Amino acid sequence: MRLRNKPWAKPLIDANPQYVVTEPEKFAGKWQERFEKEQPIFVEVGTGKGRFIVEMAEKYPDRNFIGLEMQTVAVGIALKKQIDAKLPNLQLVCANGSGLTEFFNEGEVSGIYLNFSDPWPKKRNEKRRLTYKTFLESYENVLNGDGRIEFKTDNRGLFEYSLCSMNEFGMHFDGVWLDLHDSEEAKENVMTEYEEKFSQKGQPIYKLTAHF
Amino acid sequence: MRLRNKPWAKPLIDANPQYVVTEPEKFAGKWQERFEKEQPIFVEVGTGKGRFIVEMAEKYPDRNFIGLEMQTVAVGIALKKQIDAKLPNLQLVCANGSGLTEFFNEGEVSGIYLNFSDPWPKKRNEKRRLTYKTFLESYENVLNGDGRIEFKTDNRGLFEYSLCSMNEFGMHFDGVWLDLHDSEEAKENVMTEYEEKFSQKGQPIYKLTAHF
Ligand SMILES: C[S@@+](CC[C@H](N)C(=O)[O-])C[C@H]1O[C@@H](n2cnc3c(N)ncnc32)[C@H](O)[C@@H]1O
Ligand SMILES: C[S@@+](CC[C@H](N)C(=O)[O-])C[C@H]1O[C@@H](n2cnc3c(N)ncnc32)[C@H](O)[C@@H]1O
Repeated sequence: MRLRNKPWAKPLIDANPQYVVTEPEKFAGKWQERFEKEQPIFVEVGTGKGRFIVEMAEKYPDRNFIGLEMQTVAVGIALKKQIDAKLPNLQLVCANGSGLTEFFNEGEVSGIYLNFSDPWPKKRNEKRRLTYKTFLESYENVLNGDGRIEFKTDNRGLFEYSLCSMNEFGMHFDGVWLDLHDSEEAKENVMTEYEEKFSQKGQPIYKLTAHF
Repeated sequence: MRLRNKPWAKPLIDANPQYVVTEPEKFAGKWQERFEKEQPIFVEVGTGKGRFIVEMAEKYPDRNFIGLEMQTVAVGIALKKQIDAKLPNLQLVCANGSGLTEFFNEGEVSGIYLNFSDPWPKKRNEKRRLTYKTFLESYENVLNGDGRIEFKTDNRGLFEYSLCSMNEFGMHFDGVWLDLHDSEEAKENVMTEYEEKFSQKGQPIYKLTAHF
């Protein structure tokens, strides 16, 4: 979803190059340099306002996190959270996820999070869905052998599509939850902004974990 | 679910051998003999009271249908419907679905329906679920190359399990619906007894179609 422009966002990003990368291709193979400690890297594609990735970085200090988001305004809002939190294991990237294989070397990533990705319901926009086969190809490329994809959404159509798309691609499901908040899996769950909004409306949240 | 015993069921079955097969292994490779016309055979495993299979046989006269059910009482209730309907393309079988590969030759079946199968929620009963791998093996064995499995349930845990089990088995999903009655797929849908009961309670009905 497109956010209203905020004139402060771009200057704030420019003033904080220690937290935000705007030319991620320059760090392919060298992401560990951006973090205090060398530890497994987890990437969220479509981070939005950043609540999930900031909380994950707080909760798992033994992992490095990258929040990738293409809307400058959203990156700006996420950056404000990081300016407060100052997490040494969190970086933000302002870029389009379609370039993932240019941003990371093969096997450089240990896990990918897709949270409440834009559903693109019209068939003609299928290629833009973050679980379309070309995206899956790029995830397979940058993930290491054990790497998992974790996908959450409230959008029924996108979840149905993603189950079929991942299955068709030959991915293996580790788990599927059709009402995440009413399951054991909810215990360790870290909420996103969208998740809070939609689950408050009483909609079930779908989740799956899968590997190649 | 176990039905209360009905003393009339067994005698009614015995009196109608033209509609009910109690020793299905005797017809392996010869099922077409049981029907008026030679045409593709579709099997429902766990037919219950028979509403689905009777309506399917009425709706698709160019297919032959077999309703397989292990509870004598349920077969008796389904048989009453067939005694009224007298469908030349419907047979009932009183037997346990675990014997499927003895009942049918390889490739003799064109489609399998699993409707509201018992969920067996306890892990120790996993083997009894009709989407456990040994059942999937037997479906693969009796289905012809194009054969599809169609599975409907209101049970979230069983559907989550079945998605994973079929994916793990290497099956290909043709379609997944997480709220069948609120989808295009509802148009051609034939309801089962359980489906009517659970959808009236407002529960979503899940469906998937898959092939080997
Ligand atoms: C519906 S929002 C969800 C945001 C957040 N994940 C949440 O759950 O609250 C989807 C976000 O993904 C971003 N996005 C969509 N496609 C993207 C892509 N190809 N690369 C990077 N970001 C993308 C959008 O800009 C938007 O901020
Ligand atoms: C919950 S009921 C659903 C009945 C019907 N399909 C419906 O949707 O209304 C499940 C039925 O499957 C039957 N069943 C369960 N396991 C079976 C098996 N292994 N072989 C044959 N029937 C089985 C049970 O006896 C029961 O009648």
